[in-house]
Amino acid sequence: MKTTRTQDLIAIALACALALTTTIAQAADALPSWNDGAAKKSVVEFVAKVTAQDSPDFVPITERIAVFDNDGTLWAEQPMYFQFIFALDRVKALAPQHSEWKTKEPFASLLKGDVKGALGGGERAMLEIVKATHAGMTTEQFEKIVTDWITTAKHPKTGRLYTEMVYQPMIELLAYLRANGFKTFIVSGGGIEFMRPWMERVYGIPPGQVVGSSIKTKFEVRDGKPVLVRLPELNFVDDKAGKPVGIHLHIGRKPIAAFGNSDGDLQMLQWTTAGSGARFALIVHHTDAEREWAYDRTSHIGKLDKALDEAQARGWTVVSMKEDWKQIFAFEQ
Amino acid sequence: MKTTRTQDLIAIALACALALTTTIAQAADALPSWNDGAAKKSVVEFVAKVTAQDSPDFVPITERIAVFDNDGTLWAEQPMYFQFIFALDRVKALAPQHSEWKTKEPFASLLKGDVKGALGGGERAMLEIVKATHAGMTTEQFEKIVTDWITTAKHPKTGRLYTEMVYQPMIELLAYLRANGFKTFIVSGGGIEFMRPWMERVYGIPPGQVVGSSIKTKFEVRDGKPVLVRLPELNFVDDKAGKPVGIHLHIGRKPIAAFGNSDGDLQMLQWTTAGSGARFALIVHHTDAEREWAYDRTSHIGKLDKALDEAQARGWTVVSMKEDWKQIFAFEQ
Repeated sequence: MKTTRTQDLIAIALACALALTTTIAQAADALPSWNDGAAKKSVVEFVAKVTAQDSPDFVPITERIAVFDNDGTLWAEQPMYFQFIFALDRVKALAPQHSEWKTKEPFASLLKGDVKGALGGGERAMLEIVKATHAGMTTEQFEKIVTDWITTAKHPKTGRLYTEMVYQPMIELLAYLRANGFKTFIVSGGGIEFMRPWMERVYGIPPGQVVGSSIKTKFEVRDGKPVLVRLPELNFVDDKAGKPVGIHLHIGRKPIAAFGNSDGDLQMLQWTTAGSGARFALIVHHTDAEREWAYDRTSHIGKLDKALDEAQARGWTVVSMKEDWKQIFAFEQ
Repeated sequence: MKTTRTQDLIAIALACALALTTTIAQAADALPSWNDGAAKKSVVEFVAKVTAQDSPDFVPITERIAVFDNDGTLWAEQPMYFQFIFALDRVKALAPQHSEWKTKEPFASLLKGDVKGALGGGERAMLEIVKATHAGMTTEQFEKIVTDWITTAKHPKTGRLYTEMVYQPMIELLAYLRANGFKTFIVSGGGIEFMRPWMERVYGIPPGQVVGSSIKTKFEVRDGKPVLVRLPELNFVDDKAGKPVGIHLHIGRKPIAAFGNSDGDLQMLQWTTAGSGARFALIVHHTDAEREWAYDRTSHIGKLDKALDEAQARGWTVVSMKEDWKQIFAFEQ
């Protein structure tokens, strides 16, 4: 026991030294990939006023909750949601075991490379694809499938790993908020079990702080071993009006800052900014067709229309990727 | 900004000093309400081996997850679940607005004080009571109702606040685990929104680390203000086989230690101990009819039968409240 205690003390001392160093480093410029402008200024001013003890807007650490959408806010979402590309890759991988897919939609179209045709079946087609690729295995097996894919699959346009398609300015923002006592959460329409296996490594966000859509799971004892089996049945859709519900169920506290990029985030931004005291809402606007993509009001993916109007009406921060970000991806020169 | 940074540094320094002091204090005797015996020894040995860096069983801090049942494990559950007493009190409070309850079961029996008769309707009767008392209001309104009740209502036998009916040895155990880098979670069949308003104050467990049963909620804008309304519809039952499902959904990581008291905790204990590496399972056995209550295999509340057999077969720690606890409630002399 004595050795353990001594090591604990050393570990704590080291952690403290690290925390001090980090805070000092953050003070220099925590957001180097952001151009100096209104967007960066609004973030820094908000953080300053909620963390200064003598500020009328001071917020204690336990209440410093920040929620982030993922697709289009922390990583790219074009030419389609990356989780959907994952599902398509799974359909291809599983096709040899499903000869019936050759004639069964939406699989037949998908296997011919006709994604548009496959999705002609709308939500029902999507659900069929999810069921076929995301259910039937244990949670541990699914975690391995996701991990294998995310560490090898490449983006069709850039040829980069999907985890390289994260926005460098947002990675800096996550770290900056945490250095200022914020707890950062993901609140995404993406599948919770698709996101958790890699988000701690890439965003520094542990599994318990990832809120997302889910299918049902069932406890079973298989060969004497307790497992959770993934069922082909939706449990929760963490999008639009579902986002405040997901936040409430998982976090149980109202965030004071929310970050999104589309109409799917509107209710989360409304819910976050409705509380008393200082609140912050930010929308990432995809305005850079050269370095990333440019889309908003009429896009099928990441449609930003009502939320853009509301941002303008209510003075939420709108980040123009083209104007506000020096660098978008870490792999850019 | 300069002032803020300085204050941050001071806050961190103070937190570090506090952490060191706490660790040193814990080293003396972190579990003073526990008698020296096999149960206490098993806990201390487990913590020692997963926290010692040079131990083959060392577990990094991020994986030190401990899950606790609530009713009968952290606080008492006799003569009936406290949340059910809350529901009965709500029925009485709401009765003047529901003249139809005078002739409608299960309310008619309840209002006559005949709880047994009311519950003759089984699960359906319970559900009727939950719907009538737990739904229809916003989440903020419900939080206030719970807070008002928990800070004033008294236990029928002891005359104490329900939050005084917590087990002192378990409060010490929660603090002891956290001082050793564990993250402590509640995983209870109780309502998640019934527990969150007071658990941070009483157990030191923040809302985001409380997993429980829930009803559905719905996002609405009422009088221009976004709210979540509680619906009379079950969302999730966090009991028995539901506990591993709840753990997986909320925490996303397998615990290495689990604490329960009844067959409702069996699957949680099985799931926790099924992982590789050092694992710990503990059952609180209600054996003290004088200081608390004595019940197990045939009890309607907190039935402990299969889990007791499995604990004996698998060498899980079984705490006898009578033998292992010097003191049960803090209010005892």
